[in-house]
Amino acid sequence: MRRVVWSELDKTQRELLLQRPTRNLSAEVRGNVQAIMEDVALRGDAALRALTQHFDGVALDDLAVSAAEMAEASESLSLELRDAIEAAGSRIEAFHNATRPRSVIVETAPGVTCERISRPINPVGLYVPAGSAPLPSTALMLTIPAALAGCSNIVLCTPPRKDGSVDPIVLAVAARIPGIRVFKLGGAQAIAAMTFGTASVPRCNKLFGPGNSFVDEAKRQAAQRSDGPAIDMPAGPSEVLVIADAGANAEFIASDLLSQAEHGADSQVFLLSESAELLDAVSAAVDRQLETLPRREIASKALEVSRLVQVRDLQEAIDISNDYAPEHLILALRAPREWVDRIQSAGTVFMGDWTPESLGDYCSGSNHVLPTGGAARAWSGLSVASFMTSLTLQTATSTGIANIGPCAVTLAEAEGLEAHARAARLRLAALP
Amino acid sequence: MRRVVWSELDKTQRELLLQRPTRNLSAEVRGNVQAIMEDVALRGDAALRALTQHFDGVALDDLAVSAAEMAEASESLSLELRDAIEAAGSRIEAFHNATRPRSVIVETAPGVTCERISRPINPVGLYVPAGSAPLPSTALMLTIPAALAGCSNIVLCTPPRKDGSVDPIVLAVAARIPGIRVFKLGGAQAIAAMTFGTASVPRCNKLFGPGNSFVDEAKRQAAQRSDGPAIDMPAGPSEVLVIADAGANAEFIASDLLSQAEHGADSQVFLLSESAELLDAVSAAVDRQLETLPRREIASKALEVSRLVQVRDLQEAIDISNDYAPEHLILALRAPREWVDRIQSAGTVFMGDWTPESLGDYCSGSNHVLPTGGAARAWSGLSVASFMTSLTLQTATSTGIANIGPCAVTLAEAEGLEAHARAARLRLAALP
Ligand SMILES: [Zn+2]
Ligand SMILES: [Zn+2]
Repeated sequence: MRRVVWSELDKTQRELLLQRPTRNLSAEVRGNVQAIMEDVALRGDAALRALTQHFDGVALDDLAVSAAEMAEASESLSLELRDAIEAAGSRIEAFHNATRPRSVIVETAPGVTCERISRPINPVGLYVPAGSAPLPSTALMLTIPAALAGCSNIVLCTPPRKDGSVDPIVLAVAARIPGIRVFKLGGAQAIAAMTFGTASVPRCNKLFGPGNSFVDEAKRQAAQRSDGPAIDMPAGPSEVLVIADAGANAEFIASDLLSQAEHGADSQVFLLSESAELLDAVSAAVDRQLETLPRREIASKALEVSRLVQVRDLQEAIDISNDYAPEHLILALRAPREWVDRIQSAGTVFMGDWTPESLGDYCSGSNHVLPTGGAARAWSGLSVASFMTSLTLQTATSTGIANIGPCAVTLAEAEGLEAHARAARLRLAALP
Repeated sequence: MRRVVWSELDKTQRELLLQRPTRNLSAEVRGNVQAIMEDVALRGDAALRALTQHFDGVALDDLAVSAAEMAEASESLSLELRDAIEAAGSRIEAFHNATRPRSVIVETAPGVTCERISRPINPVGLYVPAGSAPLPSTALMLTIPAALAGCSNIVLCTPPRKDGSVDPIVLAVAARIPGIRVFKLGGAQAIAAMTFGTASVPRCNKLFGPGNSFVDEAKRQAAQRSDGPAIDMPAGPSEVLVIADAGANAEFIASDLLSQAEHGADSQVFLLSESAELLDAVSAAVDRQLETLPRREIASKALEVSRLVQVRDLQEAIDISNDYAPEHLILALRAPREWVDRIQSAGTVFMGDWTPESLGDYCSGSNHVLPTGGAARAWSGLSVASFMTSLTLQTATSTGIANIGPCAVTLAEAEGLEAHARAARLRLAALP
């Protein structure tokens, strides 16, 4: 891993170091995705079957996963895995449930109340990728907040295997949610199906979940349509920034860096420390642990663009992190709590030596669908609120309009909107 | 206003009736906006000055509003207007303050806590239009939640007048927020300035506020950039849907329909009622009130595409409204509260005869920056949360990882992510 000393870099070098590789989607990918979107919009299920044959190598009669397939999937899993899914699921539920949007009512003037209430979005469309490996944990992270939001119309698409089946772990996770409809669809065609709707797949009002560059581009194109669905967040390669003090455990940190690196060759990994010794020790530990890692080719590619950064002190590290706005921030510190108030932008934060990133990926209770690419500056990770809208209500009694009607008249007149002023004046004149 | 009976329409006619006019931006507008964006990205303040000269007809030395201008603005207003601004502002503050995101902490397992905390987005960029009339109320609706969110770096752009000044009411509203920076910039160039940053204008991480089609298109283009800002919501023409029962007041309703219609020729207005008599009475009242309306030309255009819809019963009306997902929903009903639970999608709701839309536009306390064009199916109006991100923290003690580490190992192995499994195993092996 390349090593730099922050204080030795000039402004341009610093910016370059923290710059994300721009995902330069070729015009070809964009064009292909556009063609897929148009095909599905025009031909519906026929297009989905043809595209699935082409990309996934399987001819499907029924795009929907049957109730029998759902039931079988769960039974095919080991007891250990079923227990792990339930345990992780119940912790994710506990945390997400506590963050549910609450109703609010305020009397803003005598006779005037304003309220905020929330409603589930329906239908919602979830995408669970199955690239180098299927990701049942992503199915947990998407289905649980959707169900807690009260979404009654949940659609989940995940790519079929060559034999026409779907990963049983993903199905077992989906089967936890009553009424969910699962479709054997992957890639841009899955996003297109949920964007336009077909005879089989409902048109969805919001799309959720990570994917490969085809999926990301399809979500981007879907969101740009004036009648298109909303999307959860912009997508990019996954990333971690670790801040470690001299007392941190080099082996632990190396394992966290490699966890991130094995996600994909385009993963971003940074380690910031004031301790040169720790940086040395982590570098050596990474090399050692890498040797026996099954996905070492992917991880090695990610590590080529990763950096060990020596900083002056922890404040400098926090400043760099706030500027970078990492998806995952690990505070491998003796007193991580002392630094929380200074964190401005990050997707999720791991506190101390005993909280590896993999806990958050799977089972601490927090959501792992998080803003990447610096989007944490303005976007948040998934929560129950992501699956809901909030609406406001206002109620004025005759006393209420008597109290605040004249204020509306004054402001409407100031804006030259006479009909607005009249709507209040008419009522003021009619007061009992 | 054209009149239809819902039960006499077939499926296609119903869809057509509720279809929004697609804002077919000409390729020319798109191209012009793109050129403006590129010009500002390349030439910064020089481009802003040239574009302001071209579009607003004024040569500005300083793009920023000075402290002296801010102070003078407030003093130039009538006492009545100043009081109205303060009264509206304090009600908006009271309601928005009550909806601030709250921190949450949950112990998800012994030794494992998950937390959610919120952080202000900085800098944020607010746009206050000044088309046919300046909109100080929009300045209230944008600045108050930004300040309550704790945003310390607030930028506000609003178009200059030909004499180089800015509407004093807008300035007086802005002056309520300590530290805000106001710039004399309108149109796509204002959005471009906040997107890229210039020597004068800070680059912003999220952009807020309504505008004309140039502003909307510029926000759309800004949000599409991979390194671009987030935006508050997709934009479209304003709209109202009124549901009235036989006991409703036809004059009140006519004034509400005209309030909406005077916003712009592309405003959408629907009235749904089971009572043919009420529809007749409202139609006559609209014609009568329209005669003396200063903005009657604009309102008449909007009314040409507006509809009076006779429905079978209130449930049918609510179903139509949920399908349409209006920005503003007025329940001109004897018992509006009974119908609230059935409302699925709307920006904001006005309850009963004494709550005209103009109360919500100005001073009830709710926000008037709301989702249009059916976006209420997946988007919410502005609130304090719109100006914040939430991040999650997770903390496991050694007891915590002992409890949930094995679960992470099982799930990581199921996904074939060995480095993730190791990160937990290494710690489990090192437990004290
Ligand atoms: Zn991971
Ligand atoms: Zn209005």
